[in-house]
Amino acid sequence: MPEHVYIRHESQVEVPFYDIDPMNIVWHGNYIKYMERARCAMLEELGYNYPTMQEHGHGWPIVKLDCKYIRPATFGQIIQIECAIVEFESCLKIRYILRDLVSRTKLTLAHTTQVAVRLDNGEMQFQTPDSFQQAIRGSNLFMPLKLQ
Amino acid sequence: MPEHVYIRHESQVEVPFYDIDPMNIVWHGNYIKYMERARCAMLEELGYNYPTMQEHGHGWPIVKLDCKYIRPATFGQIIQIECAIVEFESCLKIRYILRDLVSRTKLTLAHTTQVAVRLDNGEMQFQTPDSFQQAIRGSNLFMPLKLQ
Amino acid sequence: MPEHVYIRHESQVEVPFYDIDPMNIVWHGNYIKYMERARCAMLEELGYNYPTMQEHGHGWPIVKLDCKYIRPATFGQIIQIECAIVEFESCLKIRYILRDLVSRTKLTLAHTTQVAVRLDNGEMQFQTPDSFQQAIRGSNLFMPLKLQ
Amino acid sequence: MPEHVYIRHESQVEVPFYDIDPMNIVWHGNYIKYMERARCAMLEELGYNYPTMQEHGHGWPIVKLDCKYIRPATFGQIIQIECAIVEFESCLKIRYILRDLVSRTKLTLAHTTQVAVRLDNGEMQFQTPDSFQQAIRGSNLFMPLKLQ
Repeated sequence: MPEHVYIRHESQVEVPFYDIDPMNIVWHGNYIKYMERARCAMLEELGYNYPTMQEHGHGWPIVKLDCKYIRPATFGQIIQIECAIVEFESCLKIRYILRDLVSRTKLTLAHTTQVAVRLDNGEMQFQTPDSFQQAIRGSNLFMPLKLQ
Repeated sequence: MPEHVYIRHESQVEVPFYDIDPMNIVWHGNYIKYMERARCAMLEELGYNYPTMQEHGHGWPIVKLDCKYIRPATFGQIIQIECAIVEFESCLKIRYILRDLVSRTKLTLAHTTQVAVRLDNGEMQFQTPDSFQQAIRGSNLFMPLKLQ
Repeated sequence: MPEHVYIRHESQVEVPFYDIDPMNIVWHGNYIKYMERARCAMLEELGYNYPTMQEHGHGWPIVKLDCKYIRPATFGQIIQIECAIVEFESCLKIRYILRDLVSRTKLTLAHTTQVAVRLDNGEMQFQTPDSFQQAIRGSNLFMPLKLQ
Repeated sequence: MPEHVYIRHESQVEVPFYDIDPMNIVWHGNYIKYMERARCAMLEELGYNYPTMQEHGHGWPIVKLDCKYIRPATFGQIIQIECAIVEFESCLKIRYILRDLVSRTKLTLAHTTQVAVRLDNGEMQFQTPDSFQQAIRGSNLFMPLKLQ
C-alpha cells in the first residue's frame, strides 16, 4: 500500500564547502542535517516547532531512520527537499525526497520516525499529543485520507 | 533468514561534548560518525582501508543506511560498537550494534551498504573487486558460510 | 591603525537545531561554519569562488583564525554576518561581525587569514594571484584605500 | 613574558574520514573538536569535568579562541595534543600544541579562554570558583609559578 501524504512541504538547502568529503561529494552523514532543517521548516509552518513540543511537555526523539542514496550532491549545489508527513497519529513519520533543484534528478530518499516522550517521566507515548494532531488537522496544508 | 556474519570486529568510542544536543543526548545524526569510525577500524584490521580502496581504483560510496535508535547515549559514555560484515560479494553490507560498554544495553542497531564504483569511469560495480574478496577470505577473522 | 575595509558583504544564517549544545546555545566551534558560508557567499559575489581558485591553480588554506564570543546564539535565531576584506594583496584576511538580525546585538567578532598555495608544487605564495587581485579591484564593491 | 604552564596534559586523536575536506586535509574548523576532546580529557584527570562544573553551579563558555595552522593533517594521522593551563584564576586559559605523533612536527597552535558563568543568574564571574582553583592547586600535575 502506498504511503498517504497528510502534509507536503518544500524547502531548499545549498551545499556548503565543509560538508564535502575527499571524493568531492557530500559526506553521507550530512544529509541527516539537511533533512532536519527541512523538517524544522515544515514544523515551523505548521505552528508546532521544537519549542512548542517542549511547551507541551514532550521531547520527540528520532527512533528510526533510513536513507537511500541515489546520486551524490556536491559543493554549491541547491537541493530541493520535499517533506511529506505519512503518519502523525501513532508517531511522526516523514518521507524526504531530495532533488537537484535545476534538473529535478532524485538524489536521496529517506524516512524518519519520531515518537513523543513525556519530559516529566521519560515515558514513550503510543499516541502523539492531541495538541499535535490538532495542529496537523487544522493546517491548511492538511490532506485527509479519504476511505472508499 | 538470519544474516550470516563473515567478519566480526569490536571497537569503542567515547561520546564527546560537541555531539550532545539540548536534550542532553547524542544528536541522532552523530551516530553515523561513530559507525564510520568503527567501519574504518575494521577495514584497517582487514588490511583494506580507504586508501587501499583508492589504490585498487575504486570509491565505495554508501548507497543505503538504516538506523534504529533504542536508547540514547550521553556525554562521556563509552559505546562499544560491534561491526559485522553480512555481505561482501555483491556489495559491502555491515551491521552495527552499539552498546553501552558497562551495562551492555543496546543503544542503536544499524546497517550500511556500500558499492564499489570505478574511479576512472564512475561505473558502479555489481561485484566487489577480487582484491577485496581476497582480503576478506584471507583474513583470520573470516567465518565462511557453511551450507548443509 | 584601524583596518581598512576593501570589500563589505552581508549575509544571513538561521541557527539549526543540530548546532545547539546542552547549554542550549550554539556550540562555539559551529560559528566557524557560519563564517565559511558567509565567506563563500562573498567570494561568489566577487566572481572568485573556490572552484575559480582551483582553476587558477591554487588552494587557499586558512592559516590563522581568531574569534571573540560576546553573546551566545540559540536555535532558530537569524544571524546577520558582515564580512569585510581587510587585506587582499599578501593574503586574504577577512573580518566577521555576527549580529542578531533583529536587535543588531553583536554576537561574535572574528578574523580568518588565508594564503594562496600552488596546487602543482604545494608552495605558499607571498602575494595573492593577479587574477584574484583583479577580481577584487574590478568589483563594484571595491573601496580603495585613499592615502593622504 | 612567556606563558607560565600550571598544568600540562597530553592526549591523542586519530583523524577520522568524515573530518577530511576536498583538499584531502582536515577541514580547519574540525581542529576545534580535537581541542575540546583534549581539554575534556585534561579536566577529567583534574577531577573537574563539565558535569562537575555544572554541579558547582557554573557554565564555562568559551569567550576567546585563536588558532594558527602550520601544517595540515590528513585521514588516519595520529595527532598528539599537548594542553597547557596558562591561567586559572581570572579565567581558564589553555594553550594547545598539536603535533604529528610520529615526526613530532607541529601542526597547529591554539588558545581557548573560558569564563565561569553562574547558572542561576547568568552572571559572568571575574574569578574562577574556589572549588576549581582548589582542584588545580591540589592536583599532582600542578606546577606553581615561582617568583624570584
